[in-house]
Amino acid sequence: MIQTQGYAAKDASSRLEPFTFEREEPAADEVQIEVLYCGICHSDIHQVKNEWGNSVYPCVPGHEVVGRVTRVGERVTRHAVGDLVGVGCMIDSCRHCAPCRLGEQNYCEGPNSWLATYNGPMVPKAKAPDKKNRYGRDNTFGGYADSLVVKEDFVLKVPASLKPEVAAPILCAGVTTWSPLRHWKVQPGQHVGVIGFGGLGDMAVKLARALGAQVTVFTRTEDKLQDAQRLGAQGVLEGDEAALKQLERSLDFMLSTVPEKHDLNPFIPLLKRNGALVVVGALEPMASVNNQEVAFHRRSVAGSLIGSIEETQEVLDFCAEHDIGPDVQLVRIQDVNEAFDSVERGEARFRYVIDMASLKGEAAAAP
Amino acid sequence: MIQTQGYAAKDASSRLEPFTFEREEPAADEVQIEVLYCGICHSDIHQVKNEWGNSVYPCVPGHEVVGRVTRVGERVTRHAVGDLVGVGCMIDSCRHCAPCRLGEQNYCEGPNSWLATYNGPMVPKAKAPDKKNRYGRDNTFGGYADSLVVKEDFVLKVPASLKPEVAAPILCAGVTTWSPLRHWKVQPGQHVGVIGFGGLGDMAVKLARALGAQVTVFTRTEDKLQDAQRLGAQGVLEGDEAALKQLERSLDFMLSTVPEKHDLNPFIPLLKRNGALVVVGALEPMASVNNQEVAFHRRSVAGSLIGSIEETQEVLDFCAEHDIGPDVQLVRIQDVNEAFDSVERGEARFRYVIDMASLKGEAAAAP
Repeated sequence: MIQTQGYAAKDASSRLEPFTFEREEPAADEVQIEVLYCGICHSDIHQVKNEWGNSVYPCVPGHEVVGRVTRVGERVTRHAVGDLVGVGCMIDSCRHCAPCRLGEQNYCEGPNSWLATYNGPMVPKAKAPDKKNRYGRDNTFGGYADSLVVKEDFVLKVPASLKPEVAAPILCAGVTTWSPLRHWKVQPGQHVGVIGFGGLGDMAVKLARALGAQVTVFTRTEDKLQDAQRLGAQGVLEGDEAALKQLERSLDFMLSTVPEKHDLNPFIPLLKRNGALVVVGALEPMASVNNQEVAFHRRSVAGSLIGSIEETQEVLDFCAEHDIGPDVQLVRIQDVNEAFDSVERGEARFRYVIDMASLKGEAAAAP
Repeated sequence: MIQTQGYAAKDASSRLEPFTFEREEPAADEVQIEVLYCGICHSDIHQVKNEWGNSVYPCVPGHEVVGRVTRVGERVTRHAVGDLVGVGCMIDSCRHCAPCRLGEQNYCEGPNSWLATYNGPMVPKAKAPDKKNRYGRDNTFGGYADSLVVKEDFVLKVPASLKPEVAAPILCAGVTTWSPLRHWKVQPGQHVGVIGFGGLGDMAVKLARALGAQVTVFTRTEDKLQDAQRLGAQGVLEGDEAALKQLERSLDFMLSTVPEKHDLNPFIPLLKRNGALVVVGALEPMASVNNQEVAFHRRSVAGSLIGSIEETQEVLDFCAEHDIGPDVQLVRIQDVNEAFDSVERGEARFRYVIDMASLKGEAAAAP
């Protein structure tokens, strides 16, 4: 067993605290990783607080992990000790269902769906059709820790030209916005709208710009308008009705990156005929949508969930090639709770990334 | 001027009553039609009652019209006196915008959008960007009348093998379900779900079956389950949770034909990955949709509005070729208000069609 130090929430009302636990030694097809950096995703907060009602405790969050391979199982061929690697939201999937066979592990239809980097299988034992758990683990511990052990084919290669702390948020925020931009075939010259301008919005703007699209950002925060301009996008305040009116039927595609229930009705009229608004930020009941605006121009409101392993590698390589990446701010793990508060207040246009060096030498408390 | 007898509502609270009015003589590119049959569409009721907030009075409804050509303008080439023809929801469009140039008049983006068969332009003067009305008419009078005058290229040919009273509802209920079945490329062997089993649902089931799809109908009305079976479809009660559970992730495509706000959440889990649920019945704010179910399998909730002139001709010809059509029940125009009541109570799985012969000789009241 590997003695591991991390930070965990004991229950839905507790803050993150030092936590010591054991990981299994890497199996023949697994690699052990020393975690260097881990991004803070809004869904870490949702799950720590059990806001989706599915949290398993203790909860060690973290699914934007970059680290160094320290050990490999005997059958591992894709990674070697010393490699800089990444781990995103998934660490395994059923490998047998139609989506898995197509390489779309993020839509795994196995009885337990995919195994999340933290919080265990997406379909836990109690909700599985046969009340079984094929992964043998009801909980998994994520990247807010000094080590991680992962199947080699769920481990990504971090291109040498990407700073490791910059690569970390690409593993969730990056691929979550990349996958729908690709699936809905965003083309150079198209006009893309991005609703919400936090960690996901920042990546959505940069990726859409690098794909050659014109981009308009919709935000509630006046301070962020200049940031949008700095990225080569137009910034519009959500309440600016004249600006919204001006944009009617002008957008080919929209991504909503707002991490909670919000009203899509002001944005639907901005889509062109046949346009799609894809919600990637909020995994919950949304406000009522007026189908008149949807039907009158054959628009769609869709959803998309992170991305596949192949898409994750693709977006890492695309970011390296185009020299783009999230704006990050490093924090010590001892300050993670304050960083959570800041993210919840919607202040951060950048991504907080935990510098895991801060964990070293800390006297971890017993569980 | 053509003296015309019809039935109209004076205001949002009045019932339909006899109404005499004048139509312009046909212009060079127009045909005059003696109305033989006119279907009763649920949107006639919505508009008579001003439930969409855009009604213009007096309101002479009717956009599922079949009749005989009695006169043609001098430049008319497509239709001749004596032809059996149909008129659907539109009688003109801007002809200049991108959708019109592509033959998608139902998505006309001209400043007044398309001209509806009744109730005037879809974008009235007051809502047009320049406060103008290019069609020169703030109101239009529909097919609950003895005659109609329409631009020849918005007049459809009714195939000889279709009974005229059966052809009538194809002009709205038929094309409204046909257009999305074609746009979303429903294929033989696919599994299609139809929510709601009134006039639109009836056509959706028959068209999807004739396209080679397996069909499941979802209805609140136990009496309609056998009707579904009779059409070769599976019938499921909306509240039958075990049956819904059984159907999870099994449908390639779903059409909601329910003519009012309703909850889509029970149906979204039934879609396969990448599947679309298209709402054609309700043009209003829908109940809240849980994006978790939408995103987890990259599903879409879309809308679609009637269909183009080309698609309308296509579905008439397809129905003739496959010997299908709506189940209709003829009513006298004097009984139209009772027919409205029956449709509103959701009783009718068939389509009421007004036999306009009943209007003849009636002493029409002055407006």
